[in-house]
Amino acid sequence: MAAYTMRVLVLHGPNLNLLGKREPEVYGRTTLDDINDLLSRRAKELGIELTIIQTNHEGIMVDTIQQAHANFACIIINPAAFTHYSIAVRDALAAINVPAVEVHLSNIYRREEFRQHSVISPVAVGQIAGFGATGYLLALEAAYALIRGA
Amino acid sequence: MAAYTMRVLVLHGPNLNLLGKREPEVYGRTTLDDINDLLSRRAKELGIELTIIQTNHEGIMVDTIQQAHANFACIIINPAAFTHYSIAVRDALAAINVPAVEVHLSNIYRREEFRQHSVISPVAVGQIAGFGATGYLLALEAAYALIRGA
Amino acid sequence: MAAYTMRVLVLHGPNLNLLGKREPEVYGRTTLDDINDLLSRRAKELGIELTIIQTNHEGIMVDTIQQAHANFACIIINPAAFTHYSIAVRDALAAINVPAVEVHLSNIYRREEFRQHSVISPVAVGQIAGFGATGYLLALEAAYALIRGA
Amino acid sequence: MAAYTMRVLVLHGPNLNLLGKREPEVYGRTTLDDINDLLSRRAKELGIELTIIQTNHEGIMVDTIQQAHANFACIIINPAAFTHYSIAVRDALAAINVPAVEVHLSNIYRREEFRQHSVISPVAVGQIAGFGATGYLLALEAAYALIRGA
Amino acid sequence: MAAYTMRVLVLHGPNLNLLGKREPEVYGRTTLDDINDLLSRRAKELGIELTIIQTNHEGIMVDTIQQAHANFACIIINPAAFTHYSIAVRDALAAINVPAVEVHLSNIYRREEFRQHSVISPVAVGQIAGFGATGYLLALEAAYALIRGA
Amino acid sequence: MAAYTMRVLVLHGPNLNLLGKREPEVYGRTTLDDINDLLSRRAKELGIELTIIQTNHEGIMVDTIQQAHANFACIIINPAAFTHYSIAVRDALAAINVPAVEVHLSNIYRREEFRQHSVISPVAVGQIAGFGATGYLLALEAAYALIRGA
Amino acid sequence: MAAYTMRVLVLHGPNLNLLGKREPEVYGRTTLDDINDLLSRRAKELGIELTIIQTNHEGIMVDTIQQAHANFACIIINPAAFTHYSIAVRDALAAINVPAVEVHLSNIYRREEFRQHSVISPVAVGQIAGFGATGYLLALEAAYALIRGA
Amino acid sequence: MAAYTMRVLVLHGPNLNLLGKREPEVYGRTTLDDINDLLSRRAKELGIELTIIQTNHEGIMVDTIQQAHANFACIIINPAAFTHYSIAVRDALAAINVPAVEVHLSNIYRREEFRQHSVISPVAVGQIAGFGATGYLLALEAAYALIRGA
Amino acid sequence: MAAYTMRVLVLHGPNLNLLGKREPEVYGRTTLDDINDLLSRRAKELGIELTIIQTNHEGIMVDTIQQAHANFACIIINPAAFTHYSIAVRDALAAINVPAVEVHLSNIYRREEFRQHSVISPVAVGQIAGFGATGYLLALEAAYALIRGA
Amino acid sequence: MAAYTMRVLVLHGPNLNLLGKREPEVYGRTTLDDINDLLSRRAKELGIELTIIQTNHEGIMVDTIQQAHANFACIIINPAAFTHYSIAVRDALAAINVPAVEVHLSNIYRREEFRQHSVISPVAVGQIAGFGATGYLLALEAAYALIRGA
Amino acid sequence: MAAYTMRVLVLHGPNLNLLGKREPEVYGRTTLDDINDLLSRRAKELGIELTIIQTNHEGIMVDTIQQAHANFACIIINPAAFTHYSIAVRDALAAINVPAVEVHLSNIYRREEFRQHSVISPVAVGQIAGFGATGYLLALEAAYALIRGA
Amino acid sequence: MAAYTMRVLVLHGPNLNLLGKREPEVYGRTTLDDINDLLSRRAKELGIELTIIQTNHEGIMVDTIQQAHANFACIIINPAAFTHYSIAVRDALAAINVPAVEVHLSNIYRREEFRQHSVISPVAVGQIAGFGATGYLLALEAAYALIRGA
Repeated sequence: MAAYTMRVLVLHGPNLNLLGKREPEVYGRTTLDDINDLLSRRAKELGIELTIIQTNHEGIMVDTIQQAHANFACIIINPAAFTHYSIAVRDALAAINVPAVEVHLSNIYRREEFRQHSVISPVAVGQIAGFGATGYLLALEAAYALIRGA
Repeated sequence: MAAYTMRVLVLHGPNLNLLGKREPEVYGRTTLDDINDLLSRRAKELGIELTIIQTNHEGIMVDTIQQAHANFACIIINPAAFTHYSIAVRDALAAINVPAVEVHLSNIYRREEFRQHSVISPVAVGQIAGFGATGYLLALEAAYALIRGA
Repeated sequence: MAAYTMRVLVLHGPNLNLLGKREPEVYGRTTLDDINDLLSRRAKELGIELTIIQTNHEGIMVDTIQQAHANFACIIINPAAFTHYSIAVRDALAAINVPAVEVHLSNIYRREEFRQHSVISPVAVGQIAGFGATGYLLALEAAYALIRGA
Repeated sequence: MAAYTMRVLVLHGPNLNLLGKREPEVYGRTTLDDINDLLSRRAKELGIELTIIQTNHEGIMVDTIQQAHANFACIIINPAAFTHYSIAVRDALAAINVPAVEVHLSNIYRREEFRQHSVISPVAVGQIAGFGATGYLLALEAAYALIRGA
Repeated sequence: MAAYTMRVLVLHGPNLNLLGKREPEVYGRTTLDDINDLLSRRAKELGIELTIIQTNHEGIMVDTIQQAHANFACIIINPAAFTHYSIAVRDALAAINVPAVEVHLSNIYRREEFRQHSVISPVAVGQIAGFGATGYLLALEAAYALIRGA
Repeated sequence: MAAYTMRVLVLHGPNLNLLGKREPEVYGRTTLDDINDLLSRRAKELGIELTIIQTNHEGIMVDTIQQAHANFACIIINPAAFTHYSIAVRDALAAINVPAVEVHLSNIYRREEFRQHSVISPVAVGQIAGFGATGYLLALEAAYALIRGA
Repeated sequence: MAAYTMRVLVLHGPNLNLLGKREPEVYGRTTLDDINDLLSRRAKELGIELTIIQTNHEGIMVDTIQQAHANFACIIINPAAFTHYSIAVRDALAAINVPAVEVHLSNIYRREEFRQHSVISPVAVGQIAGFGATGYLLALEAAYALIRGA
Repeated sequence: MAAYTMRVLVLHGPNLNLLGKREPEVYGRTTLDDINDLLSRRAKELGIELTIIQTNHEGIMVDTIQQAHANFACIIINPAAFTHYSIAVRDALAAINVPAVEVHLSNIYRREEFRQHSVISPVAVGQIAGFGATGYLLALEAAYALIRGA
Repeated sequence: MAAYTMRVLVLHGPNLNLLGKREPEVYGRTTLDDINDLLSRRAKELGIELTIIQTNHEGIMVDTIQQAHANFACIIINPAAFTHYSIAVRDALAAINVPAVEVHLSNIYRREEFRQHSVISPVAVGQIAGFGATGYLLALEAAYALIRGA
Repeated sequence: MAAYTMRVLVLHGPNLNLLGKREPEVYGRTTLDDINDLLSRRAKELGIELTIIQTNHEGIMVDTIQQAHANFACIIINPAAFTHYSIAVRDALAAINVPAVEVHLSNIYRREEFRQHSVISPVAVGQIAGFGATGYLLALEAAYALIRGA
Repeated sequence: MAAYTMRVLVLHGPNLNLLGKREPEVYGRTTLDDINDLLSRRAKELGIELTIIQTNHEGIMVDTIQQAHANFACIIINPAAFTHYSIAVRDALAAINVPAVEVHLSNIYRREEFRQHSVISPVAVGQIAGFGATGYLLALEAAYALIRGA
Repeated sequence: MAAYTMRVLVLHGPNLNLLGKREPEVYGRTTLDDINDLLSRRAKELGIELTIIQTNHEGIMVDTIQQAHANFACIIINPAAFTHYSIAVRDALAAINVPAVEVHLSNIYRREEFRQHSVISPVAVGQIAGFGATGYLLALEAAYALIRGA
């Protein structure tokens, strides 16, 4: 079994660092640190080693995804705004051999029409949307199942 | 606390009774009974009482959703084909006071274009798609979190 | 004059049985029974014999419309969710020789875009929308005028 | 109770003055005078004072609607051709505090596609279409109900 | 050779029971019984055993198609109104291992635009449209050729 | 033969009074008076009595068209900007019994896309576009042919 | 009875001469000669005289269709690529008094989207698609039924 | 003055040779010979030498247009079906230095939607549509004006 | 320097006379008189002579714009509802030699989709939207800069 | 009053550093330094402290906007190319509590169609477009008014 | 190695024979003979035997492509106007076993929108556009690489 | 002759650094280093000095393009994912005075629909797509021809 089989990369997209401060009526008051803590605690229980990165830069997100190849067993990604136009992020995910779980905090199907199309979805294994911070925990369970099923 | 607070309704839409027999290259070989068993075992652990119904009839699905009001704390629904056109199912979900978790076995964003639009999503709390049978378990965890958060 | 010339069929579509409980900010607190009472009282005054049916099943709505042929002088129909996709209901109305009055409780032109298209309208005589329970009474007056004008 | 509470403005849009002469296979042979007579007689029965205006000029229609504010309890409007493009008429209706009932003689959903979109509908209380001259009487009943319900 | 190899299921969709009474200028005066008689006589000549079902209920059509699996060598289906929106019927046909021949009485390409799109066609073997009752006989010949070619 | 059989109404739409001053690279330097002179001279030769009206007001154009009924044998109309949105003008032309010849100075198919759709064309006998002032003379010949052929 | 009443013209469109060599995974290995033989044998049994023409030239197809007038009782046409854009072929079929049966070897609704629109269909009596070489035999039966029903 | 300055090419597109026999309710009973006679007589009066060609072949139409260069002062073209898709004809017209007058017998804005778009119009000087045979005479007058104005 | 070089025409479109009374949650409580006062005071400071006109009539707006030619150095126009459909107003602005500054009180990109398209914008120098009454003052500064830069 | 109440952030998007060198027929010969000088001088007069940043990097623009929170009273932003697709920039603007004024040098409604849609506009207070360098000064006045009105 | 392995077919589409005479501002002054000479000289150097054909006839282009099978190792095709609609040419290229290189003289993405869609591209190996005559030489190099790589 | 006249910039867009590892069924097994070696060798032969840059960062691509001005005679650019949305890259290319050759490894017209639209193409001289690594060599030849033709 490869050394990285229990390593999961968590990628937070642009503006998620503002979570809890930004449009709380849409995203609630939980901060990104809160979410990362939740994830870290649950990952520990599952024996998963997490690496967590947030970036507002598309290029850094692409670089990071490329480096996940052979270093991580799974990617949990909330592409945030990049969801809707970053074909560079999509191509990076398609180019590596690491399954990705797409997460969205809000139910994007209740929001502006342009938020209802994801260029990332076709290259992810699956999507979890609308469950707030809980959605990240569900994504971690999904990642765990993917790793064990691999 | 109301008597139904730990009761969850699982609704399987049309043709899901054929699961494991139908287009296995898309849905795998797990049958609906397998999924229901998985769900029942996990529900027991969580102290949740499940009611599981599969129907090919839109009218029955609408009737069943209506009767969930004041009888269930959450609905887990895989509307299957109804996802894409049954405004009657949507209106039923919108009319009752029970949060719904939408599940799809496959990643609908990798399939035919008409499968990428859901008339149900705007009235569900959130969506989980692409994780096969595991997706139902994630939905149950989501339902559990919704119930506890309620 | 045929025996059925003073008989009118009132058809309520899916989820209308929840009226008064469902999204009251859109539809108000009047129940379907309240509406049926209003209709029955006015029908009596006009010498009209009413048959009132509510169903959540498209197939039953089609069967019922088919049986209206030669049994009713007019149909008052609120197709609810079926308004937007049930070509089966449309074809049933087109296939029989009974004029139909289409009613909607809410002003569908103020709601979601998909609610602004009716597949039923081209086969009805006319539409009445946005007047709540009053709209049914207007529909009854319209039916009465159609019967007398026939 | 304000002095104008029993006053209703009836607004006939462009070319309706030709009624009975124009495309009779679509609109029938009833003239606008016939319709106005019907309305006046019924208004008298209901204790409603009618003001009836027909104009081919969008600007006059806008002026007239503006002056309805605090002078009429309800507007019955058949915007005719303006239905499909006059945002000026729409804005006028939206700007005043008088509920409007939209009437169309023909069932516009059986006609050219461009006639099936109304820019007026979202600012009216409701619509009545397809019942010919009878539709105006129904609109008067609707106005009466609105006034009494106000 | 399996017992069902010479059995063909004929499925008539909603409102086809009204055939001969309904819009005769579009469909002619032949009744559904006439068509079933024609089919039965020809089936006898070909050594084919027919089962003929008409339903106005989408759910029943789905149930019936599901039960065709391993019971019929071919399905002849006129989905009627379901042609244009019933993804549930489509999914049922796709889920079983029985080839389907799609029939339409009228030339749908001469009718309303919405009738020119079939959600069923991509899962059928082929289509026959525009030949009235004769179309069913052609479908039977097509089914016979499919069975013999299988 | 009715008194008006040799009378033709020429209707110039909004901003045509600026002709010769306005965007000369599109319309040339001929003024509206020049065109009216050309028309009058040729009309005299053909024994046609011309009435020529230019207006920037849609309502006046509608009024004028309505009054053409039984007063003119033909209308030559350049609806200018109204071409693209004035359904009121269209309905007026459709409502009267006088054939209309639609003229455009420029070749509208070489200009902005919105200028390539005419709401007037379906109710005119025919169109002449792109020939500048000559187009009006051709329209007069067309009107003459229509009158003689009537 | 006219001399041509038992004569049927079979028109094969562009590239069909390559049949059996071209994309066999779509069209199978049957050649056009095979199909013509099948047709000729069956035509003989039915007492039908066949004329069979294949062309890659739209102009020749138009010429040939024009000459069918008063020379053939029916046309069986597989317009191939012309199906999707040749309004000239469409107009030719519409201009003559000979009913046409449209055939396609493959189920065009399973192929590229542009192949799902036929400019020919509205002027044919009906369509047969998806049955390979058998489809031509079905078309011949359809033609025979049309001739006898004429 | 070049030798060809008084020579005009008249190009009739596909199926126009059937004129008078084809869909007379749309095009009337005048034959193409009738039109050519009308044109020839009027051309003689104007001192214009006509060359008249009809073809069902797009390639021949392109060849003919190419040869018009330096041989004709103007082209009168009724592209018929080619109007709507033949970019080859459009490119030929754009490539030569001869002004073109586009003619249509019928008012194409009253016909099928696909007939309302012309790929030829942007490269013609102008269009004349809806005046039947008279339209060709108007086109000849337009050509004459163009020649004299050149 | 021409006499009109310091004269600016301010054109308020339909329903702006209701400002401060109409949908105050969108436009605030400032009246048109308030805005005109603000403009007049600032114009005085800048040495600009203002002419201010409000009209609900498209024809009057066109007439007024036409008369601005050679009388004004700049137009400040809030076309209100005409923004979205009045090609007549657009053509008038394009026809004269006076630069126009387009103003909107509200941020039209936050409102209904049809308010997000302006037929006027391509013929204006520029746009100012979303700043309420302040927007008019900015427009006056813009006009002043245009006049001085001219 | 917070310390930052008189501080305004000016954000210039990608390629604006080339101003004066780039497509001068569209943007003129003014350089970005010229504009910044103009802004600085006027800011000084108004008592506003300016921070001016130009970047070609979307990530840097997002970072900079995030840091504006509680540091600036207003943002003047010309998102340049990002206007049309950077939802990351939009979300950053929406996430902070600082009003933004959107500026464009050119009248984007006269340019390519894709330049006529702004994903930024719905989260800005308002827009100023088409006035070249003057537009920035107008934006500064707008910012000043917003600050004083806050 | 087959005899034809060094033979390349060059196919020039409609109106390319006019090259150097036609819209020189788009295509330059090089004639088709110039291009053919360039190609022939370079082909000689590469040991390639060229066959060069130009046609304005779609049917001839289809015939020629069909005959390329087993006679040529590669096709260089500039389909010109056929690029945008000739599915017959596309099907011919798809039906034979000869790789095709698509060439366009101009950068079609700078021209009319309809020129930006090619029905040929999906069946070619690749495209070269915008390099004028040089593009043909690049295509020959591409063909040479394909032949050597085959 | 300027010093940079024989210098060419090669710009590889996001994820191209993964070439040979990424989706080899689409792009083959050649690595970016292989391509760069091929280019360098051929450049040497042609006397061209190459600078080769790969980046996953849009901002860096924009910066790099801006610096090409007056430093390079030509740019060879494979914008990869940026092809489809980076208007910033497009504007950078448009802003400098260096011709660009656009290259794509795969035939983008055989891939997902969103890959068939390039926002870069209108500002490049031309495109070369579908020839894999060979395409870069063709681009170098094209650049060489552009330099020599300049």
